[in-house]
Amino acid sequence: MGTRNLDQLKQEAFEVNMGIVKEKLVVLTWGNASSFDRANGIFAIKPSGVSYTLLKWQDMVLVDLDGNVIESKFKPSSDTLTHLEIYKGFSSVCGIVHTHSPWATIWAQACQSIPVLGTTHSDHFNGDVPCLPYLKMDKVQNAYEKETGIQIVDFFNNRQLEPIHMPGCLLSGHASFTWGETSNKAFENAVALEACAKMAYHSLNLNSKIEFPDYILEKHYSRKHGANAYYGQNVINK
Amino acid sequence: MGTRNLDQLKQEAFEVNMGIVKEKLVVLTWGNASSFDRANGIFAIKPSGVSYTLLKWQDMVLVDLDGNVIESKFKPSSDTLTHLEIYKGFSSVCGIVHTHSPWATIWAQACQSIPVLGTTHSDHFNGDVPCLPYLKMDKVQNAYEKETGIQIVDFFNNRQLEPIHMPGCLLSGHASFTWGETSNKAFENAVALEACAKMAYHSLNLNSKIEFPDYILEKHYSRKHGANAYYGQNVINK
Amino acid sequence: MGTRNLDQLKQEAFEVNMGIVKEKLVVLTWGNASSFDRANGIFAIKPSGVSYTLLKWQDMVLVDLDGNVIESKFKPSSDTLTHLEIYKGFSSVCGIVHTHSPWATIWAQACQSIPVLGTTHSDHFNGDVPCLPYLKMDKVQNAYEKETGIQIVDFFNNRQLEPIHMPGCLLSGHASFTWGETSNKAFENAVALEACAKMAYHSLNLNSKIEFPDYILEKHYSRKHGANAYYGQNVINK
Amino acid sequence: MGTRNLDQLKQEAFEVNMGIVKEKLVVLTWGNASSFDRANGIFAIKPSGVSYTLLKWQDMVLVDLDGNVIESKFKPSSDTLTHLEIYKGFSSVCGIVHTHSPWATIWAQACQSIPVLGTTHSDHFNGDVPCLPYLKMDKVQNAYEKETGIQIVDFFNNRQLEPIHMPGCLLSGHASFTWGETSNKAFENAVALEACAKMAYHSLNLNSKIEFPDYILEKHYSRKHGANAYYGQNVINK
Repeated sequence: MGTRNLDQLKQEAFEVNMGIVKEKLVVLTWGNASSFDRANGIFAIKPSGVSYTLLKWQDMVLVDLDGNVIESKFKPSSDTLTHLEIYKGFSSVCGIVHTHSPWATIWAQACQSIPVLGTTHSDHFNGDVPCLPYLKMDKVQNAYEKETGIQIVDFFNNRQLEPIHMPGCLLSGHASFTWGETSNKAFENAVALEACAKMAYHSLNLNSKIEFPDYILEKHYSRKHGANAYYGQNVINK
Repeated sequence: MGTRNLDQLKQEAFEVNMGIVKEKLVVLTWGNASSFDRANGIFAIKPSGVSYTLLKWQDMVLVDLDGNVIESKFKPSSDTLTHLEIYKGFSSVCGIVHTHSPWATIWAQACQSIPVLGTTHSDHFNGDVPCLPYLKMDKVQNAYEKETGIQIVDFFNNRQLEPIHMPGCLLSGHASFTWGETSNKAFENAVALEACAKMAYHSLNLNSKIEFPDYILEKHYSRKHGANAYYGQNVINK
Repeated sequence: MGTRNLDQLKQEAFEVNMGIVKEKLVVLTWGNASSFDRANGIFAIKPSGVSYTLLKWQDMVLVDLDGNVIESKFKPSSDTLTHLEIYKGFSSVCGIVHTHSPWATIWAQACQSIPVLGTTHSDHFNGDVPCLPYLKMDKVQNAYEKETGIQIVDFFNNRQLEPIHMPGCLLSGHASFTWGETSNKAFENAVALEACAKMAYHSLNLNSKIEFPDYILEKHYSRKHGANAYYGQNVINK
Repeated sequence: MGTRNLDQLKQEAFEVNMGIVKEKLVVLTWGNASSFDRANGIFAIKPSGVSYTLLKWQDMVLVDLDGNVIESKFKPSSDTLTHLEIYKGFSSVCGIVHTHSPWATIWAQACQSIPVLGTTHSDHFNGDVPCLPYLKMDKVQNAYEKETGIQIVDFFNNRQLEPIHMPGCLLSGHASFTWGETSNKAFENAVALEACAKMAYHSLNLNSKIEFPDYILEKHYSRKHGANAYYGQNVINK
């Protein structure tokens, strides 16, 4: 687990950071992604406020689970402590994406969860994507980014939501976080969340009484996830 | 009808699979297209879950009408049996496109047919594009993809809809299928469906009482289709 | 006025045909543009149903005001007779663009004129952009494209609308036509119409009682048009 | 402060003018940006009505605070006097961007301020972005562009709005202006305004009673601005 491995980690994080820009989930510097090597306890994350047009993979900042920065000329993303709390709280998660992508943020600003209305959503999220309430004033003022991560972990624990089956959430008045077993899975879930958010908004305008059957949700989710998955080329225990 | 012909079939299927990505009808791997050689009884279809950025024409999977895979290292699309049932049921169809394109899916999730409101729609679909009901639970659980194809064929047969004049449909809670006499026609109908779905949504918000005259629908449809077509450069019995 | 001049005419028409694709006003083959040399009485127009990806400037079809095709291997656009009637009826017009651009078409399908709500609109159209009623059945069935052109000219004449100050219109259930003193002006008006159609739709959703003052319309329109124009680098009697 | 410095000023203005086109805030010639060197009292601004596809940095027009053009073959933007009044009235502003970007213009045409509903907005604008009323008739008719600038400065002064903390506004029936301590900051604020305008429109459609807490606005705004900012790599008194 030498230097080379950490370079790989930086490259993974870099690719996802560039991917969210390419997919138009991010404008300016409104987003960041990280990739976690759980064996080493180290994650690579975007530096704070650095323009995506100038970003190189070498610029990714390595951080351990105590929040220490390991060899970097840059400060890590201002949201680093949120990523850190999620990695600490969700033991199966090794990649996180945070964006202000427009349609997910539209639901977050409206303080509303995104209901599951079809198979696109079902392929990625096993139910409604929850919107967490506004963070309380003292938490915002004292340790905003750390408290945001704690809020996410506590919310999922209290409702016995399994983070791998519900790999994302909205934060009221803010935006979205998605995650996954790899940073690439977190990226795919961010793309899916944005598409589903846009479609749910308009489908509900056409028909406010949609009753999407649970058995279709279950079928589509289990086509892609779990022991009986049969979608894709490598589906053993995916 | 040797190997070369099958390569051509793969290339046709490949081009349409890339076309739906280029036209932004597909993100991630949410879509698949196939091209059918009815003389041979073989169609070429996208492999399951393979990233579009890595896809080569050689990767297309050849399948016969019994569902047998002919020479491929890849598993075919998880929706292969839906394509197969459509080719079996609709004798004039030789190309199929399945996408979760956003506006068509918005109508599908709302369980609503797309009404014909103008000449853009009339140029491709000779009437409202139907939205089929949610598939029943036992069919979803037992043979989902095959039953989806059977549902489409039965729906068109029961209503005496001619698949060539209504080359597509929506599936409630899911997305769209379009088809045509060639895979390229299926592609054009997928592009048209998405554009018409977006426009119908907004036109009805402006005016909920649109009464588009049948005689304009008939005029525009027959400009492009049938014995009296006069649109385009080669219009004999198109 | 030899061959060279006609080549220039073809090139002008070609550039505008490609411009409307680049600006995403056209998908597939849903649009066509022409450029008119009034001195010669000849216009160049897109060939019917030819894919934009294959189009070359040499493919433009030359047509005179009697509808005769002059030297071409291609049939002209199926909408050629509409262009022809507009050139005959509007003596100051030398360029025409027809598209099914989504937002203009949304208003056309809703059978509603686009109200002037701001300066973007005022810079191009001196008032509401009118939506003409559905064409009558006998006219659609007998000489659809020619009657469409006649309808536009008659509508403007009956209401004493000056085509140069109101360089476009919507056709109910169909789409839009824009025009200008050059094909490039017609192109700019098509771009403006689409942008204004989208903005008007949403502004009215936010506020259904907008009362845009006439004096701002007049100011902005006259900044760019007429004897007192002062916008741009060459504004003498533009 | 020789010629070289003025070239730099032109290059800065040019880059922002191209940036607003790249970010799709501008189509045709509907926008202009300027960069101000307060030490010299000279700003560089886009020439009037010149196509963005032909624009070179050398074409930027230099103007002093009396409105005199300094060495240029081009007329400056028709909105030059608006820029000039803002530079005169707002002593900390050294960059201005004017666009008709669709979503900001949608709110301007509806004569409505854009409410702060989330952290994306809070990162750039410390409160609702105000929409100024229609300019009065005599002001439009007599000295439109100059009066527009005066209206903006007076509005901010009367309400004791600090231009650096509220770096932009809407003009009823027209469009938006944004500004900043540099032309690049003005550009970023234009991008942010457009994104926030789009999201606010749709969030309010989902939930008309959003109550975004002031303490989150304050937290996010102060993360990026002022003495205690900790976002980005260089945050000393940013």
